[in-house]
Amino acid sequence: MLYFNNDYSEGCHEKILEALVKTNYVQTPGYGEDDFCARAAEKIRAACGREDLGVHFLVGGTQANFTVIAAALRPYQGVLCAASAHINGHETGAVEGTGHKCLALPAHEGKITGKQVRDAVLAHRNDPSFEHMVQPAMVYISQSTELGTLYSRRELEELSGVCRELGLYLFLDGARLGYALAAQSNDLTLSDIARLCDVFYIGGTKVGALFGEAVVIGNPAINRDFRYMIKHQGGMLAKGRLLGLQFDVLMEDGLYLKIAKHADRLADRLRDALEALGVPFLVPGVTNQLFPILPDTVLAALGEKYVFCEQERVDESHRAVRFCTSWATREEAVDELCADLRLLLKQ
Amino acid sequence: MLYFNNDYSEGCHEKILEALVKTNYVQTPGYGEDDFCARAAEKIRAACGREDLGVHFLVGGTQANFTVIAAALRPYQGVLCAASAHINGHETGAVEGTGHKCLALPAHEGKITGKQVRDAVLAHRNDPSFEHMVQPAMVYISQSTELGTLYSRRELEELSGVCRELGLYLFLDGARLGYALAAQSNDLTLSDIARLCDVFYIGGTKVGALFGEAVVIGNPAINRDFRYMIKHQGGMLAKGRLLGLQFDVLMEDGLYLKIAKHADRLADRLRDALEALGVPFLVPGVTNQLFPILPDTVLAALGEKYVFCEQERVDESHRAVRFCTSWATREEAVDELCADLRLLLKQ
Amino acid sequence: MLYFNNDYSEGCHEKILEALVKTNYVQTPGYGEDDFCARAAEKIRAACGREDLGVHFLVGGTQANFTVIAAALRPYQGVLCAASAHINGHETGAVEGTGHKCLALPAHEGKITGKQVRDAVLAHRNDPSFEHMVQPAMVYISQSTELGTLYSRRELEELSGVCRELGLYLFLDGARLGYALAAQSNDLTLSDIARLCDVFYIGGTKVGALFGEAVVIGNPAINRDFRYMIKHQGGMLAKGRLLGLQFDVLMEDGLYLKIAKHADRLADRLRDALEALGVPFLVPGVTNQLFPILPDTVLAALGEKYVFCEQERVDESHRAVRFCTSWATREEAVDELCADLRLLLKQ
Amino acid sequence: MLYFNNDYSEGCHEKILEALVKTNYVQTPGYGEDDFCARAAEKIRAACGREDLGVHFLVGGTQANFTVIAAALRPYQGVLCAASAHINGHETGAVEGTGHKCLALPAHEGKITGKQVRDAVLAHRNDPSFEHMVQPAMVYISQSTELGTLYSRRELEELSGVCRELGLYLFLDGARLGYALAAQSNDLTLSDIARLCDVFYIGGTKVGALFGEAVVIGNPAINRDFRYMIKHQGGMLAKGRLLGLQFDVLMEDGLYLKIAKHADRLADRLRDALEALGVPFLVPGVTNQLFPILPDTVLAALGEKYVFCEQERVDESHRAVRFCTSWATREEAVDELCADLRLLLKQ
Repeated sequence: MLYFNNDYSEGCHEKILEALVKTNYVQTPGYGEDDFCARAAEKIRAACGREDLGVHFLVGGTQANFTVIAAALRPYQGVLCAASAHINGHETGAVEGTGHKCLALPAHEGKITGKQVRDAVLAHRNDPSFEHMVQPAMVYISQSTELGTLYSRRELEELSGVCRELGLYLFLDGARLGYALAAQSNDLTLSDIARLCDVFYIGGTKVGALFGEAVVIGNPAINRDFRYMIKHQGGMLAKGRLLGLQFDVLMEDGLYLKIAKHADRLADRLRDALEALGVPFLVPGVTNQLFPILPDTVLAALGEKYVFCEQERVDESHRAVRFCTSWATREEAVDELCADLRLLLKQ
Repeated sequence: MLYFNNDYSEGCHEKILEALVKTNYVQTPGYGEDDFCARAAEKIRAACGREDLGVHFLVGGTQANFTVIAAALRPYQGVLCAASAHINGHETGAVEGTGHKCLALPAHEGKITGKQVRDAVLAHRNDPSFEHMVQPAMVYISQSTELGTLYSRRELEELSGVCRELGLYLFLDGARLGYALAAQSNDLTLSDIARLCDVFYIGGTKVGALFGEAVVIGNPAINRDFRYMIKHQGGMLAKGRLLGLQFDVLMEDGLYLKIAKHADRLADRLRDALEALGVPFLVPGVTNQLFPILPDTVLAALGEKYVFCEQERVDESHRAVRFCTSWATREEAVDELCADLRLLLKQ
Repeated sequence: MLYFNNDYSEGCHEKILEALVKTNYVQTPGYGEDDFCARAAEKIRAACGREDLGVHFLVGGTQANFTVIAAALRPYQGVLCAASAHINGHETGAVEGTGHKCLALPAHEGKITGKQVRDAVLAHRNDPSFEHMVQPAMVYISQSTELGTLYSRRELEELSGVCRELGLYLFLDGARLGYALAAQSNDLTLSDIARLCDVFYIGGTKVGALFGEAVVIGNPAINRDFRYMIKHQGGMLAKGRLLGLQFDVLMEDGLYLKIAKHADRLADRLRDALEALGVPFLVPGVTNQLFPILPDTVLAALGEKYVFCEQERVDESHRAVRFCTSWATREEAVDELCADLRLLLKQ
Repeated sequence: MLYFNNDYSEGCHEKILEALVKTNYVQTPGYGEDDFCARAAEKIRAACGREDLGVHFLVGGTQANFTVIAAALRPYQGVLCAASAHINGHETGAVEGTGHKCLALPAHEGKITGKQVRDAVLAHRNDPSFEHMVQPAMVYISQSTELGTLYSRRELEELSGVCRELGLYLFLDGARLGYALAAQSNDLTLSDIARLCDVFYIGGTKVGALFGEAVVIGNPAINRDFRYMIKHQGGMLAKGRLLGLQFDVLMEDGLYLKIAKHADRLADRLRDALEALGVPFLVPGVTNQLFPILPDTVLAALGEKYVFCEQERVDESHRAVRFCTSWATREEAVDELCADLRLLLKQ
């Protein structure tokens, strides 16, 4: 079987493996206080163009999300997000487990707008029962989104402006940030993101690492005692060096972007093939996730050779599915998939 | 000003005051282990026709809601409810504060259906990512609802059937249960409710008591160690006798229903008057809460003499507002309001 | 039976009952936004000699404790307290339920010292694993303590000084504050307490009210959005007026202190009688709680007529027990108890 | 510098590195539903001699601890443990973060006894205020303990017997289980532990893995929906295969025990050397952790070449420190340390 169901089906980029092998017997302090972590953090600060950023390495995305949110909010506060946001639907209530409500807004192609945020916050503030309602205090977005779409620089600036005007934190979940930055239509840099958000993370798990997310904190109020928060939430890795080492490799010589670009270009190739075949999409994906709408019969045939994800039923005979490429996807696999699609769809 | 904005603007029914005065110096054990509580619990069991019910007295509705929900659910489980449910929108995230997500379903006139519950639960169970999603384990409904509507016996039987078939708890928030039971269109008895729900409560705060809700638990799994839960959640009243005493009075000679009926009949009178004037309603209220849609100009004039609640803007010149009657509402006040409405609306 | 087991065996002071009866049909806004609450808050601010204090009324002590603590602390922080503190041993883990650890220090006669606090905080800060340990961020004390003892002004100043020097909040649980202020050996005023603590509360439940504690907050960081916190924690009473009204009465013409003095003088009388009989005490109680050590045989005989609390076994034939007086204790009851003790102990 | 401060200073055993390299491009499902995890779980079940065990792989110890505890307990329940237990003092309140109190018992050499557990539980059950106290519902022990000592089979049987008699869960934290099993004085097998405990884990992080703990659950009540719990608590690793793979290697041909034995024998050698020099110990360590008491002057000299942990000051001129060996410790390093100790202590 060929796996296109997600971007975490393989191990890690070979340079990471090499570094692991090479440094295996180096003795270091534990809990992220080693030189690998320090070096990786420096590279991330440099890439963001800011010396004052807090950088912390966490094992996974759910952990990063709830640790950041619990660090930022007071008990009665909640986080505005798209109804389709990962924290709202696919983390088994981990954020609520820290006591905070996800305040879901209707999403368009996985995204929410500054206007929606402003309206929600003002509706709350103008409600005579405002103290009986969860106080929105943070906005959570994903880049790229759960539907493979992107916030443009203008959209992010609008969100950031509204958040600063109204006193909310802006948090960007970058589990797939590499694939966002490498997209052809992207117009945002790491510096932009560091400037416009209070906190974000650079996802490693889905972009070449064995595991790991680099949380980057520009707002000192969130960074305060953040290592206590990590430990309290169960995310302090004894051999923290493993996280530092991986980001040290990924941030060297633009490797992170390079491997993300590989995935995006292969997704572009697949999208072009599907479009040429007249296949419609659930959303116009521009990164490494595509959501074509295909006939059940075609999907049944494809399912014998390819692994992909069910997204949703569209009509009686069609479903939207998800195809992912990744840093590890082989060109030949994509070409084979394109060829098979052509065969099946021309029948 | 005349208050029609809610059903908790006054103190309590006179018989409760009399009982408070009369028993003031009786010495009792604390924390609800007194004879007043025992007697009130017996009367409630009798009214429900079941000797095996757990009965516990809590000070308020939010407290009752999150204590019951936290007692029933495991950490990764959530509670299905109407989007308009009190726990979802008007308790400042108290349920999430106990770690549980409110799984909001679109409501029709404040209600959800057995079919919606079944669809939501099956959608969860059939999702390949089911372990990444909050597990629905309880259904929360309000009777009467936050919009003054009622579940019929058939509707409650359907919800109860679905819950039992699928292994979910059914929890009925009866903050306004008296006004539900006393409604002309009601076809449910306390026995029905005790039989069809795993747990519910009989609201006192809004129906004649100074404060207090009587939580009635039919399912032993929820009742287990419930007094520990009450204390853990901060709801164990030192002078628990105050709660027992009030329900002892309210459950004597049908007082609870009698005073609820008073409120409902006055609401009926107001509704008839509004209907006669051709006023439309946001929902067809049948209990003590009415949601008429009135012109801004009329509301402005009314606002100089009456206190009522804003509900929502309907169009550029009309808003839906809430008028409540209660056990304490005076007939003359309603008649005065009706007269004023006739004057204002005939202009 | 005559109840000496606690100070919440009766209803409330008659003046409160009278006020309840008199104001029963006054219509007010809900949730503590009424004139009674405003007036009571003003009286409390005046009694503390400070116009800038936040004053909030909560139903009970456990609720007050966890709401204040959860409002003040970040998730990884904990509260230093005596091992014998109410929050540590008698609230069914309600504070831990909000996610915070009680950091128990050995208590001497129910009290902890500034030195203990300083040592604990410095031990934490100097530990190389400090980030792996709960960060002490608040000190909780009770006045009077759970053992009926008192902090002197000097002791409270020392605690306050250490807290301010080290950046910790000082929180004083005043469930029995009246009995503390009325004690013969007391040298603290409400103004002192308001000046030396960041937050404290004036207990009503045990000092003449039906229920209710007045939380007084001098530190704006804790007072921020405190009403959201109250609602989030389930402590927002719909008919908040009931709390305001009671404190309005209690704070009028020194009633609170007067009725507390009544209890303390009766306790003094009982203590004198016990001391005259050569009865030793577990701790030298100076308020309304006494912990005499009595022979099992005497306790058995007393138990047929009086209700008191077991405290702890002292040796094979003696136990320490608790006798409480209260605002409601009758002089004759104390005299009768003294007489019976003389009879039993002279045998 | 030579690191003896802990057992997580290096990467991982070479066979794990080899397996990582070899399997890097194998495509697998995510979240622990891969063949590596299945195979590792099978080997663990076989090693424990039971087919019915739930086996789950988590990244770290704190995460394993709070996930197990939160899965097992209801909100008002707590966990009995030694005051020196890792969960009580070195996890930044992570267990309290899930709402549960650690009920600390005085420890002797890091251990608690069945008698202590029974006394604590009966004291709670016999207390008239039992509902006002956290209900003990689980016992947590560590094997080897935080002080390098061991529970004997008889001691574990006693604890297990008390737990079963009284209806408590028994949970064994095996972060250093390898070093326990490989100790010369150990008389427990994995089968014994699986039989006597409701849940335990086999620690990988400190015994040859990059990271990872294998949670083994014999009690179905704890195993129920445990994967939901893992996700809810933020511990579901996307590339779960990494955990399965490591345990697959460690459980092959007794590798886990073999490398633990290496560490224990080197610790034995160091202990023998210290004892020969007349050095006293804080506790009689029998596994890979030793706590000698050494003069400050000697420690200052050692500190220039060796990294070790401060444990506690013993008197004005002596401190207890911790020396750890591990699977990665080189014989020559231990010999060098022994030689240096001889030199320094004979001066």
